[in-house]
Amino acid sequence: MVNTTVNHTAHEQAHLDRALGRFQDEIQGEVRRLITTADGDPALGGFYGQMAYHLGWLDRDLQPIPVAAGKLMRPALVLWACELAAQTSGAKAPTLAKRHQQAMPAAAAVELVHNFSLIHDDIEDRDALRRGRPTVWAVWGEPQAINAGDGMFALAHMALWESAEHGLPAKTTLTLARLLDATCLRLCEGQYLDMAAEASATITPARYLDMIARKTAALMRAATTIGATIGDPSSATVPAALGDFGEALGIAFQLRDDLLGIWAADTALGKAPAGDLRRKKMTLPVIHTIANAAAKDRDRVLAIYHAPGEPDAADIAFLLTCIGRTSHAWCQAHLAAYCATARAALARTTATGEAMDALGALVEYVAIAAQA
Amino acid sequence: MVNTTVNHTAHEQAHLDRALGRFQDEIQGEVRRLITTADGDPALGGFYGQMAYHLGWLDRDLQPIPVAAGKLMRPALVLWACELAAQTSGAKAPTLAKRHQQAMPAAAAVELVHNFSLIHDDIEDRDALRRGRPTVWAVWGEPQAINAGDGMFALAHMALWESAEHGLPAKTTLTLARLLDATCLRLCEGQYLDMAAEASATITPARYLDMIARKTAALMRAATTIGATIGDPSSATVPAALGDFGEALGIAFQLRDDLLGIWAADTALGKAPAGDLRRKKMTLPVIHTIANAAAKDRDRVLAIYHAPGEPDAADIAFLLTCIGRTSHAWCQAHLAAYCATARAALARTTATGEAMDALGALVEYVAIAAQA
Repeated sequence: MVNTTVNHTAHEQAHLDRALGRFQDEIQGEVRRLITTADGDPALGGFYGQMAYHLGWLDRDLQPIPVAAGKLMRPALVLWACELAAQTSGAKAPTLAKRHQQAMPAAAAVELVHNFSLIHDDIEDRDALRRGRPTVWAVWGEPQAINAGDGMFALAHMALWESAEHGLPAKTTLTLARLLDATCLRLCEGQYLDMAAEASATITPARYLDMIARKTAALMRAATTIGATIGDPSSATVPAALGDFGEALGIAFQLRDDLLGIWAADTALGKAPAGDLRRKKMTLPVIHTIANAAAKDRDRVLAIYHAPGEPDAADIAFLLTCIGRTSHAWCQAHLAAYCATARAALARTTATGEAMDALGALVEYVAIAAQA
Repeated sequence: MVNTTVNHTAHEQAHLDRALGRFQDEIQGEVRRLITTADGDPALGGFYGQMAYHLGWLDRDLQPIPVAAGKLMRPALVLWACELAAQTSGAKAPTLAKRHQQAMPAAAAVELVHNFSLIHDDIEDRDALRRGRPTVWAVWGEPQAINAGDGMFALAHMALWESAEHGLPAKTTLTLARLLDATCLRLCEGQYLDMAAEASATITPARYLDMIARKTAALMRAATTIGATIGDPSSATVPAALGDFGEALGIAFQLRDDLLGIWAADTALGKAPAGDLRRKKMTLPVIHTIANAAAKDRDRVLAIYHAPGEPDAADIAFLLTCIGRTSHAWCQAHLAAYCATARAALARTTATGEAMDALGALVEYVAIAAQA
């Protein structure tokens, strides 16, 4: 059994938090402005209020609370990619500032797409809690939550149109809008594959990786591609490189979650490892074991996963041993490979500075889970 | 009691059907092409299959069936508005054909937005049947239906981007995309207001009209505005006129439904009038009566609407009398006023021909319900 969380408390976490902290207030302000601007009619206060609740600045009575926003990693990817591409093109301070301003609505658009999909995923997965708060459907019911998610999807597009108002050429805006919509379609395809796999319980590692490429990595590829395109609209190579970086990072993040979900003890909460096994989640280590373990072991894993209720201590011990032996190193190697791909993609750009530093910090933060 | 359906079997219905028939195959083909093009991976057959099922060309086993498409009125509005605007600008045959080609993906986009909202509305309203077939959620469950609707929303945008591929300038495409997204946001606002009104059961006629302006008329305004903009990108007045036409027509259509839902007997099905009263639907005649009847009558209407189950024969008779006396003429006058607005908006354009004839036929079809 491997406990990887110990390593995360130190240097890399602090480095990442510092990097993410740079834009958080600005992004939060932009998202807030978009929703507040749309909310003109008092009769619609509840509609936009549900969005604000989900985003963490109103409580369930729609009263203001200290902002409990997420990490805002995806919009930060837009802004870092923008800065890095602009620097690579040799842009000076006034141009950098202008590009940053153009990228801000696009960053908000990416964050709104992410959150629209979370609102709907929470309904689809019957998750009643997110970040310790009741989900939108748990407070207002499914019909309102479906509708609030739809509204946020439309609002994400409205955000992107504002980039054009900041002087982004119409043709570039159109290219980005098309990319964002193709990405949304891929998100939905990924969610379909995820739900279909859960229903059938037979999925290969390759299909799982394809599923998370759509469901998780596509939006991170879109974030870096959109940012880089705004940062240097004349370049094709830098957006492509940062797009590849975003996708590899996205898959690596999911593999990290999959590894920690089985082998990380939550020392802060005093929780034992194997959380994902207790919840019988179909993550890559489990899927790889089902596809590769000896028939007797595979059948026992399947029997445990198909049985009702939470597995008992003996079953958990068996799963940890069997999956650990069959799939832990393989999953770590895959995570390491995606981190290497991300580093190599980043090396195809030449800029140095805060943005390069932040994107590098993200990779190293994720890569630790491959080293335990 | 007034039976208005008798008048609808004759001339106007045939006129409208003939007009709608002109583009139905072409629109159906375009929507089909978009969904089939997106469906590249056999593993995603079920995802796009749910969309095709909803649109009426696959059965629940995803086998082809004779197409059971709707009237396709909204995309036809796009194409008629396009033709009418192009004619008004003096365009000749080759330009007309090019504009029509550019408008076709936009027409498909409008139809897909309409259908995405139907898939989600059916979940939100717990409607298990649509046009005599089980709804998507009734066949595949709510999670899949939410996701299929989201996918169709993304696909609607992808459709619009194809207009740019047919030579529509990027700036014009952007204007149309922005309009479509603002419209989607209004649809969601309308749905929110509708659900909130149902929960509170107190809504004024003015708020009801505002609600249907968002929920129903906004997309018809968008359809005619988008079509006219493609038909003559240099004109501001024709898209504005046809936009006003679309909105007035959209509200008129809803008021027609509201009137017929209470006072039309379905002679074909042998059903008595008052269908909406039996289902205790909060339509304009009921809302107007609650706001304007004497206190004693108002209280009885509210008591009937708040009681569980279907009203009995005596209650239905009372509702028909009370609502008929208080609100029938008022609702007819309002319907007539919206039809007059639509006619006046149409008269602000100067073209003659098939498109003008078709748009005029739509108004006269709706207007009959104001004359009984």
